[in-house]
Amino acid sequence: MVIPMLAEQSKVIRNWQLLIPKFEAIVGKKGVIQRREELLVYECDGLTSYRQRPALVVLPKTTEEVAEVVKICDRNLIPWVARGAGTGLSGGALPVEDCVLIVTALMRKILNIDLENQRVVVQPGVINNWVTQAVSGAGFYYAPDPSSQIICSIGGNVAENSGGVHCLKYGVTTNHILGLKIVTPDGDIVDIGGDIPEMPGYDLTGLFVGSEGTLGIATEITLRILKTPESICVLLADFTNLESAGSAVSDIISSGIIPGGMEIMDNLSINAVEDVVKIGLYPRDAGAILLVELDGLQVEVDTNKQRVSEICRNNGARNITTASNAEDRLKIWKGRKAAFAAAGHVSPDYYVQDGVIPRTKMAYVLKEIEALGEKYGYRIANVFHAGDGNLHPLILYDNSVPGALETVEEIGGEILKICVEVGGSLSGEHGIGADKKCYMPQMFNEVDLETMEWVRTVFNPKGLANPGKMLPTPRTCGESAKLQNIKQFEGTEVF
Amino acid sequence: MVIPMLAEQSKVIRNWQLLIPKFEAIVGKKGVIQRREELLVYECDGLTSYRQRPALVVLPKTTEEVAEVVKICDRNLIPWVARGAGTGLSGGALPVEDCVLIVTALMRKILNIDLENQRVVVQPGVINNWVTQAVSGAGFYYAPDPSSQIICSIGGNVAENSGGVHCLKYGVTTNHILGLKIVTPDGDIVDIGGDIPEMPGYDLTGLFVGSEGTLGIATEITLRILKTPESICVLLADFTNLESAGSAVSDIISSGIIPGGMEIMDNLSINAVEDVVKIGLYPRDAGAILLVELDGLQVEVDTNKQRVSEICRNNGARNITTASNAEDRLKIWKGRKAAFAAAGHVSPDYYVQDGVIPRTKMAYVLKEIEALGEKYGYRIANVFHAGDGNLHPLILYDNSVPGALETVEEIGGEILKICVEVGGSLSGEHGIGADKKCYMPQMFNEVDLETMEWVRTVFNPKGLANPGKMLPTPRTCGESAKLQNIKQFEGTEVF
Repeated sequence: MVIPMLAEQSKVIRNWQLLIPKFEAIVGKKGVIQRREELLVYECDGLTSYRQRPALVVLPKTTEEVAEVVKICDRNLIPWVARGAGTGLSGGALPVEDCVLIVTALMRKILNIDLENQRVVVQPGVINNWVTQAVSGAGFYYAPDPSSQIICSIGGNVAENSGGVHCLKYGVTTNHILGLKIVTPDGDIVDIGGDIPEMPGYDLTGLFVGSEGTLGIATEITLRILKTPESICVLLADFTNLESAGSAVSDIISSGIIPGGMEIMDNLSINAVEDVVKIGLYPRDAGAILLVELDGLQVEVDTNKQRVSEICRNNGARNITTASNAEDRLKIWKGRKAAFAAAGHVSPDYYVQDGVIPRTKMAYVLKEIEALGEKYGYRIANVFHAGDGNLHPLILYDNSVPGALETVEEIGGEILKICVEVGGSLSGEHGIGADKKCYMPQMFNEVDLETMEWVRTVFNPKGLANPGKMLPTPRTCGESAKLQNIKQFEGTEVF
Repeated sequence: MVIPMLAEQSKVIRNWQLLIPKFEAIVGKKGVIQRREELLVYECDGLTSYRQRPALVVLPKTTEEVAEVVKICDRNLIPWVARGAGTGLSGGALPVEDCVLIVTALMRKILNIDLENQRVVVQPGVINNWVTQAVSGAGFYYAPDPSSQIICSIGGNVAENSGGVHCLKYGVTTNHILGLKIVTPDGDIVDIGGDIPEMPGYDLTGLFVGSEGTLGIATEITLRILKTPESICVLLADFTNLESAGSAVSDIISSGIIPGGMEIMDNLSINAVEDVVKIGLYPRDAGAILLVELDGLQVEVDTNKQRVSEICRNNGARNITTASNAEDRLKIWKGRKAAFAAAGHVSPDYYVQDGVIPRTKMAYVLKEIEALGEKYGYRIANVFHAGDGNLHPLILYDNSVPGALETVEEIGGEILKICVEVGGSLSGEHGIGADKKCYMPQMFNEVDLETMEWVRTVFNPKGLANPGKMLPTPRTCGESAKLQNIKQFEGTEVF
């Protein structure tokens, strides 16, 4: 599958033999990958159903090198795409035809750790989990924890505004980024945000986080770290059906408790995980399990453990087990974090959807998803961040069956339609990327989208930075009505 | 004092007798204020040292009326300024010469309360405190609480990204806004953000909050409300000197406790408050008092109360009193919230500065401020959000003394210079407005500021929305190098 705009782009014939030495002069010969077989691994990110080989992979090591590489692209009108670890699930790092893929794999330095002020500065290629590893000895951690945290990069987390299990209580990536050094699409190096949260002027850090590589590339990232809680406890409650687990979630939230994380897995997911990861903790006959992590002071965790247990029992929980030491907790979470991978073992292929609904609509939406599975004849596993209504239906299919992928994508689209209809969102944490941009008009009207385009075109006027991602219309500035308006205005007299 | 750009603007002579009926046709005759004496109260906001009479005040009641008013301004190149309750302290709602002041005083409806999903939709003129009043019976509250919360408006809070005592734990306004309906400077009505936090596309809500009226005007605001904690307790610890109180703050944060709020008042503030508000709780001989609010479960608050008390005693606290019932707590906070007003009673005039420093630099910066007061011969009271390093030095002066205001502003500037030098910020919560834009180049270089200008010019290409605020350079789009670049680019061929 290819993304739009490529047809137009392919009209341009670039002389790569002249261009390659320019990139080599910046990053060295070893920093440029051009051989067809070596480029293969860069054809897709975690959304493997979309593939496109880049013309070239460039591996810079510093902000300055990134800026020089981007300038070459800018001057020669070469589209470019930034890529971290390539674990994204929406095709945000999918190359476009004849592009330069800027890969941050050699930008993996932790540049500064300031425990007193609770901040860490990293290069974008640093793996999410390394941050916590670097500061946990001193009693700190980095809160956003995507399931892929042992392999995904902070730069990619910034681009997609990644979430994770602990984002219910602590917020997603954007709540943990203090400042950024970015290279804009015309090669300028700009500092946005800073070392402290209270920065005057426009919140460009907030704008950049989640902009999916369309506004530039972050080359230094200042993260906020938190104190490790005194006590952490995970409860595993098993229910005979999904509705009861969902109802327990609502009651927990209504009671005023904000768990560190709150996750539901349905029977299909439970069995997939037990088949593959064999953790032996998840009851195979449960309709659903609810995992609740409580953190804080020992007395607080003890009290909330009792309250959550009671709420679960009132909602029909059969058994509740708790894990307070680190080893047992990790074991319980291991299954949840491996749920996507496990789906890939029990089915030749799987398609993971990422949609958000108001918590109050959970029972209704889960029933609708089940009905869709039955209607189309596909198994759909449900694993989700229940506390914030972030669903992850996993549609199991076999890509070797002709037409299967198309049907599965259709089901995925139907699910998103339901999410939006009940007042939810197209994406909770995986981003829009190449995968979902066609659905954006379901959530935003023409004027709303045009407003986003103003912002894109002003940072990325030539449309070279990650073209064809996130927004449905790949207009460049010349086509933007808003910028036309500016042009017209330039002729008139202003006070 | 007048702000720049007015000189140029005054070249234009507008025929208000032709324009006024256009505005009256939208908002009715009663919705337009044009008589000189009635316009007097709109000459300034809370920053009373800057004054400028608007040409006209317009009072719309709906989003559509705002859009129509803005369109008239756009078509006739009339600068306009939005104003909420006029309590801002940086001159963000200061009129510019010959402008239309759009006042939201008639937009005071709470449009929707959705307790189940913990959100409230309000018009911009709704007073901050009304939100909590509307939902407290059901066990909820709205967290951001500026000292002016009984008179300031939510629209103004959005424009200035207001803080408050509870923002240490719960974050500032931007962390509590889910979505906005805005009118852009060309009169478009745009929905940004939504009903849930996880919205795809650029985070335009984050960009708009804190944009100080330069990107448009919010006409409907969706707020996140929180569950009222089970237990709240305020500790008042008195110290013989400021340093000890500051050191206690550092130790509390290092211990991992995040209080709901943590405030310091020095001897001068204590006595001003006791002179005026006469609460009888603040020890007049204390070098400083530290107010710590703890909230959460009863067991959590009890445990933390002990830990905080111990930390305070270890740092030399003479006495610690606690208040757990609502009446006593309000009494303790009353003095803190009235501190600015009290300064106005013990001195003919006062100038409140708003700067942020890393907590670790507190002792050094407070000493420097003291030294500045001695050097210039002015008394400086200190009242501040100690937990997040947000200082509020109050410089006491007499405006009837020739040159006093200028000297005081010089001291204010020196204080900000120190804040920035130690890695802090020009503003924690009052905004940049007209007051501090000249200091922006101390924090941001040319490229950083230019990047902010791109954003401003694309939303506000004619520079009509709140001209001359926040950014030091009042360029319109025709002068922006970036937009020049777009123009040039339009001649070249893109793939």
